Amino acid sequence: MSALCKGLLLSTLVSVAASYGFPDCRNGPLANNTVCDGGASVADRAKALVAILAIDEKFNLTGNTSPGVPRLGLPSYQWWQEALHGVASSPGVNFSASGDFSHATSFPQPITMGAAFDDALIHAVATVVSTEARAFSNVNRTGLDFWTPNINPYKDPRWGRGQETPGEDTFHLKSYVASLIDGLQGGYDPAIKKVIATCKHFVAYDLEIWENTDRYNFDAIVTTQDLAEYYFQPFQTCARDAAVGSIMCSYNALNGVPTCADPYILQTILRDHWNWTGDGYYVTSDCDAIQNIYAPHYYAPTREQAVADALVAGTDLNCGSYYPTHLPDAYDQGLFDDSVIDQTVTRLISGLLKLGYFDPPSATPYRSLGWSDVLTPDAEALALKAAEEGMVLLKNDGLLPLSLPTDHNTTIALLGGWANATTKMQGNYFGVAPYLHAPLYAAQQLPNVNVKYGGGFGVPTTDGWDELLTAAEAADIIIVADGISTSDESESKDRYNIGWPPASVDIINQFASMGKPVVLAQFGTQLDNSPFLSHPNISAIIWGGYPGMAGGDALFNILTGKTSPAGRLPITQYPAEYVNQVPLTDMNLRPNATSGNPGRTYKWYDKAVVPFGYGLHYTNFSTTIIEPSQSSYDISSLVSSCNGSDSQYLDLCPFTAIQVNVTNIGQVSSDFVTLGFISGQYGPAPYPIKQLVAYERLFDIPGGSSSIATLNLTLGSLSRYDENGNQVLFPGDYALLVDVPTQSMLHFTLTGAQAVLDEWPENPATGQQKREILFE
Amino acid sequence: MSALCKGLLLSTLVSVAASYGFPDCRNGPLANNTVCDGGASVADRAKALVAILAIDEKFNLTGNTSPGVPRLGLPSYQWWQEALHGVASSPGVNFSASGDFSHATSFPQPITMGAAFDDALIHAVATVVSTEARAFSNVNRTGLDFWTPNINPYKDPRWGRGQETPGEDTFHLKSYVASLIDGLQGGYDPAIKKVIATCKHFVAYDLEIWENTDRYNFDAIVTTQDLAEYYFQPFQTCARDAAVGSIMCSYNALNGVPTCADPYILQTILRDHWNWTGDGYYVTSDCDAIQNIYAPHYYAPTREQAVADALVAGTDLNCGSYYPTHLPDAYDQGLFDDSVIDQTVTRLISGLLKLGYFDPPSATPYRSLGWSDVLTPDAEALALKAAEEGMVLLKNDGLLPLSLPTDHNTTIALLGGWANATTKMQGNYFGVAPYLHAPLYAAQQLPNVNVKYGGGFGVPTTDGWDELLTAAEAADIIIVADGISTSDESESKDRYNIGWPPASVDIINQFASMGKPVVLAQFGTQLDNSPFLSHPNISAIIWGGYPGMAGGDALFNILTGKTSPAGRLPITQYPAEYVNQVPLTDMNLRPNATSGNPGRTYKWYDKAVVPFGYGLHYTNFSTTIIEPSQSSYDISSLVSSCNGSDSQYLDLCPFTAIQVNVTNIGQVSSDFVTLGFISGQYGPAPYPIKQLVAYERLFDIPGGSSSIATLNLTLGSLSRYDENGNQVLFPGDYALLVDVPTQSMLHFTLTGAQAVLDEWPENPATGQQKREILFE
Repeated sequence: MSALCKGLLLSTLVSVAASYGFPDCRNGPLANNTVCDGGASVADRAKALVAILAIDEKFNLTGNTSPGVPRLGLPSYQWWQEALHGVASSPGVNFSASGDFSHATSFPQPITMGAAFDDALIHAVATVVSTEARAFSNVNRTGLDFWTPNINPYKDPRWGRGQETPGEDTFHLKSYVASLIDGLQGGYDPAIKKVIATCKHFVAYDLEIWENTDRYNFDAIVTTQDLAEYYFQPFQTCARDAAVGSIMCSYNALNGVPTCADPYILQTILRDHWNWTGDGYYVTSDCDAIQNIYAPHYYAPTREQAVADALVAGTDLNCGSYYPTHLPDAYDQGLFDDSVIDQTVTRLISGLLKLGYFDPPSATPYRSLGWSDVLTPDAEALALKAAEEGMVLLKNDGLLPLSLPTDHNTTIALLGGWANATTKMQGNYFGVAPYLHAPLYAAQQLPNVNVKYGGGFGVPTTDGWDELLTAAEAADIIIVADGISTSDESESKDRYNIGWPPASVDIINQFASMGKPVVLAQFGTQLDNSPFLSHPNISAIIWGGYPGMAGGDALFNILTGKTSPAGRLPITQYPAEYVNQVPLTDMNLRPNATSGNPGRTYKWYDKAVVPFGYGLHYTNFSTTIIEPSQSSYDISSLVSSCNGSDSQYLDLCPFTAIQVNVTNIGQVSSDFVTLGFISGQYGPAPYPIKQLVAYERLFDIPGGSSSIATLNLTLGSLSRYDENGNQVLFPGDYALLVDVPTQSMLHFTLTGAQAVLDEWPENPATGQQKREILFE
Repeated sequence: MSALCKGLLLSTLVSVAASYGFPDCRNGPLANNTVCDGGASVADRAKALVAILAIDEKFNLTGNTSPGVPRLGLPSYQWWQEALHGVASSPGVNFSASGDFSHATSFPQPITMGAAFDDALIHAVATVVSTEARAFSNVNRTGLDFWTPNINPYKDPRWGRGQETPGEDTFHLKSYVASLIDGLQGGYDPAIKKVIATCKHFVAYDLEIWENTDRYNFDAIVTTQDLAEYYFQPFQTCARDAAVGSIMCSYNALNGVPTCADPYILQTILRDHWNWTGDGYYVTSDCDAIQNIYAPHYYAPTREQAVADALVAGTDLNCGSYYPTHLPDAYDQGLFDDSVIDQTVTRLISGLLKLGYFDPPSATPYRSLGWSDVLTPDAEALALKAAEEGMVLLKNDGLLPLSLPTDHNTTIALLGGWANATTKMQGNYFGVAPYLHAPLYAAQQLPNVNVKYGGGFGVPTTDGWDELLTAAEAADIIIVADGISTSDESESKDRYNIGWPPASVDIINQFASMGKPVVLAQFGTQLDNSPFLSHPNISAIIWGGYPGMAGGDALFNILTGKTSPAGRLPITQYPAEYVNQVPLTDMNLRPNATSGNPGRTYKWYDKAVVPFGYGLHYTNFSTTIIEPSQSSYDISSLVSSCNGSDSQYLDLCPFTAIQVNVTNIGQVSSDFVTLGFISGQYGPAPYPIKQLVAYERLFDIPGGSSSIATLNLTLGSLSRYDENGNQVLFPGDYALLVDVPTQSMLHFTLTGAQAVLDEWPENPATGQQKREILFE
């Protein structure tokens, strides 16, 4: 087919996109094809459809904006939907301008929900999201494939998309994402998936644009040890343990090979080692990552080679048009054969089958959901609860909770760029919220309070400072709601500075010099709060992240003591100078004296301004580890007893459940997040400072009362990774540390010979080498 | 005064800003004050008003949003107006929503007008701008102080505000700015100024934000030699030669001292050495540069010290509120005395006096200008002419000018992010234009042409590529209008890359593979056009910069041959890898083997993709230098004869006028920019490759005809700067080179002993040293 004809065809096809009727399996052209036979296996059904497709029809199905196959009554379909923290505006999601389906519940960003350390919350949120998605789908306002979650671990505070993740720790991310996928998909691998979730970006994505490197040309150089131990970990959970329906390969190259063209990643690790081979599991490219294989990676010498490389490596769907545009010529050049494209299309059709796409409504548990299932009172309450649970109290000299007199009005000056935030509270990848309750809105609902509102600080200019200083002077209490937002950190925007702007420090210090109580609510991800943590006239600091549609309500519920704060920082708060110590492009987690890398995350870096896991309460808690009967364990016994458990994976085998008695030794009832870390000098040096291995959020412990947290340790909790990426259980002395800073400690010992829990597959020959040979 | 009262006062004052009545000198409270006596000297008039002001009234007058003095009938006044290339939206400029005064003529950005190398054009443009400004003023829609031009030399392609300047060469900038100020102010120092122009940013500003450095915290480390030879040069012309009414000190520090707090810069150089002491000459700070002295420069230990430092150094006006907010306390602390604030306020009042502010309309030549003087047919024609003169033909295999058949329709695909540009054509600091004629609009006016329009390339994604490829396939001729815009380079946005995005190269190459004629119109400032300059299937490349409201008309007038292109690149087109060779923060112009700096500007860097001064025509020209009678000159004779000329400055003394015979040896009538450079190995090593010393644009030379350009050389043309910043005439062999690449050359010799033309004032003790002592 000539380029001209192809272009015209594509142009026509694009215009029919974005309607979502299901195929008519009763009366349509496919009615007698096995794909419409609910009694047949998914494999047979998909195979039957693929068997009757012409080759160009197959190629047409490989882009995210699929034209379907009109002659067969296969509808057009948009594969690209987003739902990071609620059904979100995206190519496939169509909000109504008003009335029914004009909004959806908008939860906090993952970074804030991550701070809740509450897996049940995440499951509940994800269940609401998938319910609302199905409701939108049932009126043809969305497809059913959602490109969420972003589960790259957030290892550098500069990364503009860190807000989309639950934080920096892989154990935390793995627990979070397992609950999330369960909620989104309606189970890990149910007969009919509620929606298909997509774990992205596979793998080592981690930056937007920094100096001359951007996500499109970034070649992430990562050791096998760091890959196995850190970067791959959340994806292992997605693929191996939570049966996510889709994985998105990323823009970057990894050790020389663009991930979407790397069979080591997409076949050896993902499909072979993790057994991610269920019906309809498919890999999609990040948007135009296939084009990027050609340029700017310049990995493939021609456009045709680029698409062939990706298809052969195992990328099934192209967000973008490079596949449908260039696969035909690549096929004509013999760069792949029919079996490859058939496998790809089979996976995609199977993915749709798993959604009940070819089944009658009666066969699918979700086809009756409707507008009344969107923004239910429970969903609204959950959005508020998620924001409250995710706020973290970083400093409090006793001012909080505020005691507001009822016999006269208190004047509160509410100042800063977040005071009257709107969509700013949603971060990125958000949908239309029914309302956006800013801090200002929430303050105005308080009885006996006058609010003097002042907006942003205009920094780096001093625009409006006169008005702000006047408002502050007129108040009894000054509440500063400020920080950063998606204009500072976002997709395609990394930061160079993680300190507060000097001019913001100037004006906040001017507020603090007025002799009035000052509270700082810091929003956005990480900022070095040192100037305010150490400032004697700033009474309290609370971190709010991106708290979603009820963010202001949550903030004032906490400030006034209606809710007690119990969130924990899901990220290390680094000092401002950290950005000068390690390039954003340096993927190494361990400190390195030669490069000057001071280490990344709480596991390897010990100079945090505020550490990972930190968070104060309106009361105090004491923790006591309930001593287990045994304090020494033989490795071979652990492994052999494990071989009898239900898990086919040794790292998931139970080790022991440690109970922690948590006592509220103050007055105010409060949740408490019990964090358990393992520490010790075992396995390969250097040794991490500690590693999170378990957490449990306890709820509403009254003053003077106790509650028991259970920390379920597995063999994986005790493991380390060697230089070849093998996960190994080592003999040695171990300590379980509870809370941040550590409040209580339990020592135990592993004896005997080391045992491999997971043998990491070697990369036989890196693709880079292969390609270099090709070019010689 | 308590901070509270001060705040309340300021708050009230701010609300009365932005009305522009002139004082009522006939019946108002000042009627009998000498300030209203048109027969008195400016000095006496200003002194009389200052004498009756209370101290707090004086402080109130020091911010850009001046409350005036209500009790004296001195109106509020907004000092901040912009007019970079037309009366521009800014705090003091108020466009009507519709009808009269709803728009103003919008000329190209300076970078495009700089490419015209036509000083008369600049004078004409500036005259239109000041006429329109006065018309707006006469209906109280603007003040009369304009913070234009930006005359920092554009030495690094990454700088986001390079577009605001005429280019990289100081001789060019000096000629340009002298014409501009003449046009804006209605003469260099007329009795009544038309408007007050402001040369900014004094000095060594040069970056927005790059890695951890931003313009607010940047400490520019510059050698005395580079300062005197390069960074100070345009400001010398502004202050010493063109009597600009105002100078804006910059955000950055220079060698440790924030410029707005540096008496060496503001007193020793500006006022003492350059004799910039006329009535009403004043220094304004860049917006909040006074606050920046406190933070992030941390130069002054308190806010009061910061304002005192700036005031004492000679910064008269604060764009911002730091002066009015903190000067009272600084005064109470005794950090400056009455004479300092009196001098400041006297300068500001004198500035207003020089605008005829206190004179009756009849005494001011501009008070009758009105709406009929805005966007006159001449002004409209000038905006088109400026855009046409500023476009530069970089490549042409003979395709241009297009021959469009009249007997059938030609289909043109007009593709790219600039094809339907609107305000993008205006760059930044723009006003409301009466229309914005995009390339698409202009193409649609052509007879016998069908236009297939396709927008931006969606890069880095491939969004919309199918449609673009389809449009290209359907065309006879493909015209790509693309490049960068203020979303890539702007105030507060420097670039990290100066290459085309790889995805743009991909799709443009796909267009070029279709076997059709392809023309590339590149907009925005500098991009490494190598991939297209060397591409055999791309027939022509034209550079358009930011061409203003008639940009599309200008482009198609040139593409179709209605107008012949004759602009020259006012900037070096660097290769993409240049950004890896020298940090944006490195202020050194000369190559440095140790740092790896490859040199800056055409004077010191010889690996340009396209050199400064390059530009093709639709014809060819030959140049012949008319040999002068003398080829050797005695330095002492030159200097002594100069002492008898009208100039008090030796560098301005005429050397000789060289005539160049320019012959159009082709068919098409065309303008020709005659560029004269001096080259030679004289004075201190290293030697610049060459230096521009004269230019003249000749107009409409018919094919086969000749015209004479006169290159007026001065003693300054032959000078070099030594390490102490002294401007010196050295003996040696000189060559005058005409055109780029050099077409003709004239050799001559200077003999005798070297002579200093300008002795640069030493910095007695740098402010940094002073401050370090203070802190000890």
